[in-house]
Amino acid sequence: MDAMQEVLIIRSSGGQAEELTDQVAVETACILKVNGETLVTLLCTPSELEAMAVGFLLSEGLLQSRQSFLSVTLDKKNTAVDIGLKDLPADWQRLFHRKTITSGCGGGITFTDTGRRQAGPEGRGTMQVPASVVPELLQKFRHVSTLFMKTGGVHSAALADLEGNILFFSEDIGRHNAVDKLIGKAFLSDLRLDDKLLVSSGRISGEIMNKIVRSRIPMLVSRAAPTCMAIAGAEDHGVTLIGFARGQRMNVYTHPGRILFNV
Amino acid sequence: MDAMQEVLIIRSSGGQAEELTDQVAVETACILKVNGETLVTLLCTPSELEAMAVGFLLSEGLLQSRQSFLSVTLDKKNTAVDIGLKDLPADWQRLFHRKTITSGCGGGITFTDTGRRQAGPEGRGTMQVPASVVPELLQKFRHVSTLFMKTGGVHSAALADLEGNILFFSEDIGRHNAVDKLIGKAFLSDLRLDDKLLVSSGRISGEIMNKIVRSRIPMLVSRAAPTCMAIAGAEDHGVTLIGFARGQRMNVYTHPGRILFNV
Repeated sequence: MDAMQEVLIIRSSGGQAEELTDQVAVETACILKVNGETLVTLLCTPSELEAMAVGFLLSEGLLQSRQSFLSVTLDKKNTAVDIGLKDLPADWQRLFHRKTITSGCGGGITFTDTGRRQAGPEGRGTMQVPASVVPELLQKFRHVSTLFMKTGGVHSAALADLEGNILFFSEDIGRHNAVDKLIGKAFLSDLRLDDKLLVSSGRISGEIMNKIVRSRIPMLVSRAAPTCMAIAGAEDHGVTLIGFARGQRMNVYTHPGRILFNV
Repeated sequence: MDAMQEVLIIRSSGGQAEELTDQVAVETACILKVNGETLVTLLCTPSELEAMAVGFLLSEGLLQSRQSFLSVTLDKKNTAVDIGLKDLPADWQRLFHRKTITSGCGGGITFTDTGRRQAGPEGRGTMQVPASVVPELLQKFRHVSTLFMKTGGVHSAALADLEGNILFFSEDIGRHNAVDKLIGKAFLSDLRLDDKLLVSSGRISGEIMNKIVRSRIPMLVSRAAPTCMAIAGAEDHGVTLIGFARGQRMNVYTHPGRILFNV
């Protein structure tokens, strides 16, 4: 299934109308199954569905270790992904549903649970990057985001190393899905995440930050704004959070010790 | 609770760092209860929580008529809204949970259910507006969106009449919540929606379109892109969908008969 589709539209300019074809982002419903049982349906861009499903289960905490992962299978119609897991608690479906219900669309709840506070930045790697890596990385990120340029309707996200090289790139109509796709691809490729940067085109909410925290990514960069819940989560869990990264400028909200500024 | 909060940040420009305070959008967890029982927790901007809760129940189909609405109460700590409803089916909680699980964060599913196809635009009013109303409305919309200008981190939405006058305006860190707040305010003010325009700052997904369809709003205008699922939903349910409305330009994706272009 293509991630874009042509549609016939009327473009009006100063009240003058003309008919033309335009590209729009395709949005599809993907059923996520665990051991053959339907867990949830995600509305998403129809690409990298296996990675998205694996990343979703990692982000939600249902998949906690490499040992419990058995398989991932996309059906032939590209509408359902089935993930084989072992060592699940007997009441995993009930646990998942309760979590979804009590925390909106998954996530966020960790940050109100102060008992779970983790150590500072030391807990997730002592990497440091020169401040100049961020604008260089953003420039590569923009070039790579072709789907966005065509439809204006999707979010992109990328995983990069400490030199600012993009290792994985994903796009989706949902900010959350784009991040889940990256986390899933890293898991399926055995890529460690505690020395990587994640770049997102979208705003950073508490839910996104929850995914970053769970996957032990130490640094998150966005062109857009964070919410205060995302900042609180980053502060508590030792994530370096950079927002409004545009051109040579950026705002560092938490744990600036990982950035080497000019002295 | 304020919708914004001051935080201490490091702003870097060309690698030179300086400390300053900045405004960020507050994100809060609001528990939505129906008849005293917890239904869901929404992550949102802490404003107009009663309207958001009512709008959410309308959008999700749990609140279907004015007759079944009894009361809405915000607790003193601004963390929970309880809505009194009557005539609920006995298994309403199970129905809601199943819906949430099968359709992601609510919505979208209607459009794959072709049995529910409704009539064309005639089914939701035969209003017409001159094309020039759209840019005028967008200009007012931008002026009104003060919170966005301060934090860059929230979405805004507005309800307008056929002359482009803004009747209600809402902001939220979530696109969906901003729309729910408007729908809730209209319900609580007894405002009919089948002759109004809704303007959104955000992208138009199938889920947002589902809210528009359910509330019988005939025209949706956005500065941003729609997805193909939103276009399909608008086409099927007789909604005029306008995207990329910027300055004097706009794309009309469906049911252009409601727009009076220059001839």
